Amino acid sequence: MSLPLGFLYATTYAGIRKIAKDDVALIVSDTPATAAAVFTKNLVVAAPVELARKNLRASKGKASAILVNAGNANCATRTGAHVARETVRAAAQALGVKPEQVLPASTGVIGVEMDGSMIERALPVLVAGLDSEHFDAAAVAIMTTDTVAKTARAEVTRRGKAAKIAGMAKGSGMIHPNMATTLCFVMTDAVVSTAELRSALRGATERSFNRLSVDGDMSTNDTIIVLANGASGVKASGKTFEAALTSVLESLAVQIARDGEGARKLVTIDVEGARNDADAAKIARAIANSPLVKTAIAGSDPNWGRVLCAAGYSGAAFDPRKADIDMQGVPVCRGGLATDFAEDELKAKLDGRECHIRFSLRGSRGRGRARFWTCDLTEDYIRINASYRT
Amino acid sequence: MSLPLGFLYATTYAGIRKIAKDDVALIVSDTPATAAAVFTKNLVVAAPVELARKNLRASKGKASAILVNAGNANCATRTGAHVARETVRAAAQALGVKPEQVLPASTGVIGVEMDGSMIERALPVLVAGLDSEHFDAAAVAIMTTDTVAKTARAEVTRRGKAAKIAGMAKGSGMIHPNMATTLCFVMTDAVVSTAELRSALRGATERSFNRLSVDGDMSTNDTIIVLANGASGVKASGKTFEAALTSVLESLAVQIARDGEGARKLVTIDVEGARNDADAAKIARAIANSPLVKTAIAGSDPNWGRVLCAAGYSGAAFDPRKADIDMQGVPVCRGGLATDFAEDELKAKLDGRECHIRFSLRGSRGRGRARFWTCDLTEDYIRINASYRT
Repeated sequence: MSLPLGFLYATTYAGIRKIAKDDVALIVSDTPATAAAVFTKNLVVAAPVELARKNLRASKGKASAILVNAGNANCATRTGAHVARETVRAAAQALGVKPEQVLPASTGVIGVEMDGSMIERALPVLVAGLDSEHFDAAAVAIMTTDTVAKTARAEVTRRGKAAKIAGMAKGSGMIHPNMATTLCFVMTDAVVSTAELRSALRGATERSFNRLSVDGDMSTNDTIIVLANGASGVKASGKTFEAALTSVLESLAVQIARDGEGARKLVTIDVEGARNDADAAKIARAIANSPLVKTAIAGSDPNWGRVLCAAGYSGAAFDPRKADIDMQGVPVCRGGLATDFAEDELKAKLDGRECHIRFSLRGSRGRGRARFWTCDLTEDYIRINASYRT
Repeated sequence: MSLPLGFLYATTYAGIRKIAKDDVALIVSDTPATAAAVFTKNLVVAAPVELARKNLRASKGKASAILVNAGNANCATRTGAHVARETVRAAAQALGVKPEQVLPASTGVIGVEMDGSMIERALPVLVAGLDSEHFDAAAVAIMTTDTVAKTARAEVTRRGKAAKIAGMAKGSGMIHPNMATTLCFVMTDAVVSTAELRSALRGATERSFNRLSVDGDMSTNDTIIVLANGASGVKASGKTFEAALTSVLESLAVQIARDGEGARKLVTIDVEGARNDADAAKIARAIANSPLVKTAIAGSDPNWGRVLCAAGYSGAAFDPRKADIDMQGVPVCRGGLATDFAEDELKAKLDGRECHIRFSLRGSRGRGRARFWTCDLTEDYIRINASYRT
C-alpha cells in the first residue's frame, strides 16, 4: 500500500541522544493540513505538549509540520518552554510557514535541560533531506526503548478512488504504563473536515491506545497527532474514515504491547457479559494491569486465580459464581471454579508469543464487552527500567 | 516485653504445604475474647473470610480461637465453604467452644481444592501442643513467600499496671499489591469494649495496612483480627489503646514492605502540603505503586522525574511548579525543576537498605500529609511470581 500523497519526511542525528542514531524527525505536508491531536491527561505536562496544544488553537486546527525529537522529553526543565518555542520558530522559518503551524513533540528523559541549538543546527540538513520516501526512517528516529519501529497503513475508497492513511508510533507496553511516552503521528491524504477529524481521532483512540491498559495513567509527553491534507481529493464518509483510522491506531497499539519493555508475549484480554461496556473495560484493565497476571504469563503458568482476583477488585459489579475464564482457548474456570484442564498441555500452549485470556460472564446475560492488550512482565523489564536514565 | 496473658498458641505440619514446614496454627484465648476484624474488599472472597464474617456476627463479636492455614487459600473451589465449616466445627469441638467462636483464615494458592481432613487430623496435636510461649512459632507457620516472620508488641499502662498487645502478620509488599494475602492477628489482654475495639482497629488499619499501597486492591483472603480477652484487668482509654494498636500494626506493615517479594529496600514516602490528607494519600499511593519509581530505586537511580510524573497522574490537584522532591534527604527537585545535586553521591546513598522520598508542596500552603511504605521492584519479584504456583 503506497503512502499518502503530499507528505515529506526527514531525519538526522542532532546529538541529543547519547548514541549516534537519528534523534530528530521532521514531517511536512505540502499544503497546510487539517490537524487533530490527543495529549496526555497528566497534570505534569512537558513543554512541547503545551506548545502543540497552543499552536493548534492559534492555527484553528491547521498544521504544516511536526517536529519530533527523541532522547530528551523537554519536561520539568527551566528552559523547556523557551526551547520548544525557539525550535518551532526556527523550523517554521526554514519551511516558510507560520510558527503556529508547526507541532512539536519530545520523548526521553525528564528533568534534564534540552539544548535547542542542536535542533536548530540540524534544521538545514532536515529540510534538505525532506523526501516522500523517508517515512520509515522517521519511524525509526522517534524510537527510545522500542526494539522495532512501528508503522501501519490503511486506505479508504470512494467511487473507485483511494485515500491513504499511514501512521507511525513509538512506545513500549508497560506494567501499569504510567510513563512510557507514546508518540503517534498519522498522515492521510483524505479530505476530512476538522470536526470529522477530531471525532474520528477520539473514537479511534478510545478503541486502541486507551485499551492498551494506558488510559488515565499517561506520561507527561503522550501525543497523538493526525494530519489530513486532502491531497488525494477523496472525501470518505466520517464513519468509513474513522474505521480506517481505528485499524491503523489499533495496529500501532498492538505493536506497542508486543514490543513491551522486556516483553516476550503479547497478551490479548477479552471480557464479555459484563453489565455494560464500561464495566467490561474496568475488568479488562484490572487484568491487564495486574503484575501477578503478567508474571504468571511470563512463566507460562495458567494461574487463572489471579485473573479472577484482579476482576474482583476492578470495581465492576458481577457475580463471581458466573465467571468463566479461558486461556489459549482452554476452559480453566467455569462458574468461578477450577475445571479439570490438562495443566502440562496448557503450559506448553502458553509458551508461545501470543496469549489470549477470555473472561466471560455469559450466565449473567450482560452485553458489555471490551478488548485490551498488554504484555507479560519479565525480568528484562526490571533490567531496562532500573538503568534507563544512567 | 512479655506476651498478653491468657492466650495459647500451637502449630504443626498438616500436609497442606508441599514442603514439610508447619502450615497450621491455632490461637486460643482462655476466655471468650472481644473480637474485631477487617476483611478484604475484593468481590471475590475466600470461604474462610465469608465464614469468619458470619461467625463474628453470630457470636456478637466474641471469639475464642483463630484457626489458620498456609499453603491453600481455600478460594474459588467447589468444596470451600464445606471445608471451612467442617474444620471450624472440628476445632470448636476439640476446644469445647461454640463453632461461631472460632475464626478461620487461609492463605496460599487459589482454585485448588483443600483437603479439610488434613486439618481435622492435625487438631489433636494442635490442642495438645497449646502453649503461651508458642507465639513466635505461630508467626512462622503462617508464612508463605515471606522470608522472615513478622511480630510486634506494645503495651498500654494505666495506674501503673500494663496491658500487653502482641501481633503477628504475614504478607509480602508488592508492586501494586493486589494479591499478596495479608493475614494479621493481634492479641491483647487489655479490657476493651466491642465498640472501642472496632473503632481502634479501623483507625489503626487506616494508618498502617492501608498505607502499604494496598487499600482497595486487596487479595481474596486478606484478614486482620484483634482479640481482646481482658485478662490483665487494665482498661486503657480508647485513644491510648488505639495509639498502641496503631504502633503494632504500623510496625507489621513496615515489616511487610521491607520483606516485599524480591525486595532489597524499604521505601518510605512522605507527602506534605497537599490540599488535604486525602489528596496527599492519592499522591503517596501513586508514587508507591509506580513500577517505574520502584525499578529506579532498585537501580539506585535518583530519577525524580518518575516521582513527579506519578504525582501528576494521581488524581490529586496541585501546581507542579510548587513541587519539591527530596531523596535520602537530598533536594533533587525544587519548584518542579531539577536542582544541581551530586548524582554520584546520591546514587551511593540510594544503595542502602532504606530509601526515603519526600514530595512536598510547601509553597501551596496546603496542610494535607500522608506517609506510605513500599519496596523496590527487582528481578527477583518476577522470578518468585512467575513460578509461584507450579
